[in-house]
Amino acid sequence: MTASTSPLLVVGSVAIDWVITPRAERPEAVGGSGTFFSIAASYLTPVRLVGVVGRDFPAQAIADLRSAGVDIDGLEIVDGKTFRWKGRYHENMNARDTLDTQLGVFADFKPKLPPDYRTSPYLFLANIQPDLQLEVLEQMARPRLIGLDTMNLWIEIAKPSLLRVLSRVDALLINEQEAMQLTGEHNLIKAARAVQKLGPKSVVVKRGEYGALLFHEDDVFSAPALPLEEVIDPTGAGDAFAGGFMGWIARTGDPSGEQLRTAMIYGSALASFCVQGFSYDSLFGLDAVKIQARFEAFAQLSDFRRAELR
Amino acid sequence: MTASTSPLLVVGSVAIDWVITPRAERPEAVGGSGTFFSIAASYLTPVRLVGVVGRDFPAQAIADLRSAGVDIDGLEIVDGKTFRWKGRYHENMNARDTLDTQLGVFADFKPKLPPDYRTSPYLFLANIQPDLQLEVLEQMARPRLIGLDTMNLWIEIAKPSLLRVLSRVDALLINEQEAMQLTGEHNLIKAARAVQKLGPKSVVVKRGEYGALLFHEDDVFSAPALPLEEVIDPTGAGDAFAGGFMGWIARTGDPSGEQLRTAMIYGSALASFCVQGFSYDSLFGLDAVKIQARFEAFAQLSDFRRAELR
Repeated sequence: MTASTSPLLVVGSVAIDWVITPRAERPEAVGGSGTFFSIAASYLTPVRLVGVVGRDFPAQAIADLRSAGVDIDGLEIVDGKTFRWKGRYHENMNARDTLDTQLGVFADFKPKLPPDYRTSPYLFLANIQPDLQLEVLEQMARPRLIGLDTMNLWIEIAKPSLLRVLSRVDALLINEQEAMQLTGEHNLIKAARAVQKLGPKSVVVKRGEYGALLFHEDDVFSAPALPLEEVIDPTGAGDAFAGGFMGWIARTGDPSGEQLRTAMIYGSALASFCVQGFSYDSLFGLDAVKIQARFEAFAQLSDFRRAELR
Repeated sequence: MTASTSPLLVVGSVAIDWVITPRAERPEAVGGSGTFFSIAASYLTPVRLVGVVGRDFPAQAIADLRSAGVDIDGLEIVDGKTFRWKGRYHENMNARDTLDTQLGVFADFKPKLPPDYRTSPYLFLANIQPDLQLEVLEQMARPRLIGLDTMNLWIEIAKPSLLRVLSRVDALLINEQEAMQLTGEHNLIKAARAVQKLGPKSVVVKRGEYGALLFHEDDVFSAPALPLEEVIDPTGAGDAFAGGFMGWIARTGDPSGEQLRTAMIYGSALASFCVQGFSYDSLFGLDAVKIQARFEAFAQLSDFRRAELR
């Protein structure tokens, strides 16, 4: 979708969700961290997606990913059922309960990178089992920057593997509770500093409707969330954020603290689109003008006049 | 403390708290909404405090208020016990349980404004019973701007009175849960718009460690909270915020949307000092240089480079 020449590889889940919110419900909602990430990032840089789906995966979703410009040569389609997740959001949309998970073809997923993917300069390891994330790293030449997401489950049952991956990545994107769970620190600064000691010099703490914090070396940046009058479905917001964040880094080729701050805002902008519809309804079919307008809305949201006490 | 000539009157509680946090405890901590508010605001504009305490109130606290430049001609000292609150904070410091409340002399409090207070151009009605807030309004000439705080208790047991006060104020400062409770709206934008229909054209939604939102007419501003490595005691943070916010408005005499944004940052700065100690330990004895440095820290925290998608 852009003139950038820095491909961004993402390895993640591609799923069919059944999403229940207090006001509506969508069965057969195409989701998965790899899906949301790659559509969001596609507006900023060329994206390559590695994942697996079953024969039940909708042809329309394949067409949509292609139409978004996502390179899906790495998306395997195999016999069996696509990974399915069913969940219900609470009244305030900040919390959710998982009602059902069926791994399907994801149970036997072994990421296999097409040869030309191995030299991708930017890599995002979306939320999958840490041992699979390590297998991806083994297949890669040296990317310029590696981002990682994970979840509470892996912190609980696969922490040694997770720590091995963490020691090899540049940026961890994690939610607030997970940051505390991973480090045992209740204070976010201390938690972020503890994560930095594990490897990643940049730590993005996602706080849902409260925005996100970036800890980069010694610096801290606070990105607001855009208040929205209607949130339809929060599913995928964190992945869309990661797509915008990593997409901007890949596009500019500049992982300096200053550009990482801007990347946080593009991430926030794409997340804000994501929650305005089920599945990727509101994330798909955007363009530079719409995204830029949303970026400006974030600038307007957080801008204030410098003053002096005299 | 400043060269401003716009006195700010606050009517609120002056209390002795017993604060228990996961790591420390302070009995006999001087607190109360009026106390925190007036010390915070004193750095920005002349402040007048109306409240009541008993004979047990520490002389040192009286001396501290005077030394901060707070006009306490309106602080009654009467026979009986000062209002006492005892509470325990949860591990993450975001939530707390009230263990005990003893109204003491506050039970019979009837705010009486000294004659020269009645023409104060700026008024803040801190969190007290709405009927008392109405009694204050009855004694006032027309202030240029009136701010108001309240709490869940009054929304539950004194809503008709609260609605009457609300119809007469310019700015409501309220926390997130209370905004939803007051309006029945789970969405913050809808809640803020509903509050605006009740009277105040400016609504500040306080979100604790997540910062605060300002809804002013059709505009929305998001003020970040400064991540702190150690929070000692959150008690009074909302009141210190209100003091900084109202203090800046009184100092500038300009309640435009642009100055309200800056006021949000001074409020946030003073709140950030407040939580760094028990009682007003960290709020007292500041100066323009320290407050300005904290203001700059907020600017640095939220600043990002504008970019273009081309």
